[in-house]
Amino acid sequence: MKKLINAVDDVLTEQLEGFALAHPELNVSLEPFFITRADGATQGEVAVISGGGSGHEPLHGGYVGQGMLAAACPGQIFTSPTPDQMIAAAEASHGGAGVLFLIKNYTGDVLNFETATEMLHMQDIAVQSILIDDDIAVKDSLHTAGRRGVGATVIIEKVVGAAAASGYDLDKCAALARSLNLRSRSMGMALTSCTVPANEKPTFDLKDDEIEIGIGIHGEPGQERVPWQPVDEVVARMTEEILEDAGYSRTVREWDREAGDWLERELVDEPFAEGDQMIALVNGMGATPLSELYGVYRKLAHICKDKNITLARSLVGSYITSLEMQGFSITLVKADNETLTLWDAPVRTPALRWGV
Amino acid sequence: MKKLINAVDDVLTEQLEGFALAHPELNVSLEPFFITRADGATQGEVAVISGGGSGHEPLHGGYVGQGMLAAACPGQIFTSPTPDQMIAAAEASHGGAGVLFLIKNYTGDVLNFETATEMLHMQDIAVQSILIDDDIAVKDSLHTAGRRGVGATVIIEKVVGAAAASGYDLDKCAALARSLNLRSRSMGMALTSCTVPANEKPTFDLKDDEIEIGIGIHGEPGQERVPWQPVDEVVARMTEEILEDAGYSRTVREWDREAGDWLERELVDEPFAEGDQMIALVNGMGATPLSELYGVYRKLAHICKDKNITLARSLVGSYITSLEMQGFSITLVKADNETLTLWDAPVRTPALRWGV
Repeated sequence: MKKLINAVDDVLTEQLEGFALAHPELNVSLEPFFITRADGATQGEVAVISGGGSGHEPLHGGYVGQGMLAAACPGQIFTSPTPDQMIAAAEASHGGAGVLFLIKNYTGDVLNFETATEMLHMQDIAVQSILIDDDIAVKDSLHTAGRRGVGATVIIEKVVGAAAASGYDLDKCAALARSLNLRSRSMGMALTSCTVPANEKPTFDLKDDEIEIGIGIHGEPGQERVPWQPVDEVVARMTEEILEDAGYSRTVREWDREAGDWLERELVDEPFAEGDQMIALVNGMGATPLSELYGVYRKLAHICKDKNITLARSLVGSYITSLEMQGFSITLVKADNETLTLWDAPVRTPALRWGV
Repeated sequence: MKKLINAVDDVLTEQLEGFALAHPELNVSLEPFFITRADGATQGEVAVISGGGSGHEPLHGGYVGQGMLAAACPGQIFTSPTPDQMIAAAEASHGGAGVLFLIKNYTGDVLNFETATEMLHMQDIAVQSILIDDDIAVKDSLHTAGRRGVGATVIIEKVVGAAAASGYDLDKCAALARSLNLRSRSMGMALTSCTVPANEKPTFDLKDDEIEIGIGIHGEPGQERVPWQPVDEVVARMTEEILEDAGYSRTVREWDREAGDWLERELVDEPFAEGDQMIALVNGMGATPLSELYGVYRKLAHICKDKNITLARSLVGSYITSLEMQGFSITLVKADNETLTLWDAPVRTPALRWGV
């Protein structure tokens, strides 16, 4: 294992120290781990907070800042953060208008954010949580009941963060996040595995001429291992699956503030159709050259054009990664005018910035 | 060789097509290859133009846009662009205030930009060129007489692009670029090699427990291969060399517009000293996780603080890459108030954006 690290036990602390030094506009707490804006809570603005295992940088810490997240809670590498982190982050960053947790659907994350939700409720902090489960590759997986949460997280954090900054209240922010998730679909693939520092060995093995379609962001198994194929064929398969996927239904638990208890809600994905406009993310898994991602985007754009689907906005780069995995994912989020206006709104974070 | 490509011969064209589709605010010419702003030449603004072999993305195409480059000329992978690209780019992007070529010091790039300079002069377009040679690792190398041009290029393109946008004339832009280069120092290292698609094999071999210090951005040999070391030790070695390096002297050829001929100029680096403030770039080589770059930044910041050197601004990410090489480079550019003001000025390019 060759990595740019010192002792394995110090990796996360040292990387967060470096992050803090490079970004004085943010506050980084190392005990417990959480990241907030250095200028404090914005009074009257819903605090949009996310978190999850580390190893997916810039997600989530790189999205803390004006117009996006109020706080992020990094767990150890590929390990859920704990409720105390979430509670401390919420206490430090909420501005009296409530807290919205955006949770990628992994069992540990869900459990711990649920605990934090209950504890904040007991502290009389208004709280709501929305689950993100956009990965269409597999239903149920290692660490996941139902679909995994992946690339849509970046787009939902941006759009809902902008909504909070523009004055949406907690219920409206939650409704927007829920709606965005139901019109988001993603799929990933890998050329190579990543290596978790504490494990010292690659998470999985792929032969020199093999790729894995449908991989998860922790190297969890996907749909299929196939021989290497030209990128156009891989992109075509993934894009068709994303565009044709429809009607996925799941039962989610959402917090009912009035009842002080959990409410089950049946949610069904909104299908994509000709004429839709999308925000597209072509995402590198951590070790993928940017140039190759543009090769992916080319084919994605051609297919969408043929199907009369407009890629109204796009991001091409490594935005939700898996350490040094090579590969990419595609995310499409169906966007109405409200979504695009919020997408275009100013944002100032380490990893996404424009307009300010 | 597993890459996200189709046929090897189509790689550059297809990736540039994808780049064009993702960035409608830019124009991409495929015959010959060059990239300009879609809204045309800015009248009265010096056109700052750069170029070089592809495989270093986002350099240079990702830096075309308001407040930075007027145009970029991508060559084939790790291969110099040709004079016809440079001339076409200059013709398409100059706004009557002249053209400044920023040239990374590689023999092919220098020769071809010199030819383009002479041809533009014959067309009565005012032109000037400045050589960038910030890599202190080795003097003379594969493809290079003298030092190589590396990470400082990103910072010089930003600062001089801002100067052009704010109304500096051609001579002032050239003088600024020359001055910045004399106060820029960089060094890189690699954990793994890259593979040029046409070669189908890694450019070099490193053992599983070996790293190379002082590597070039094409995988050219560096100073030394050593056993893997903790990142702090590697960063300490590189940072000390960068901070202590001083007095490098070289003879450069610069174009004399009045004489219509080349002028030799002796240029000597400005030393770094206690109390200096810097713009710092911690740069990934293409396949390096962002999280590990923050580990690098941490140690760099600690060393600079101990030496009373202020990292006034910083960039942490993959800004000048070597395909899918793993490793990093450090660049420090001594910054006065003019430099920082220009650094902070609005920029809107695919890879660097703020304030707009």
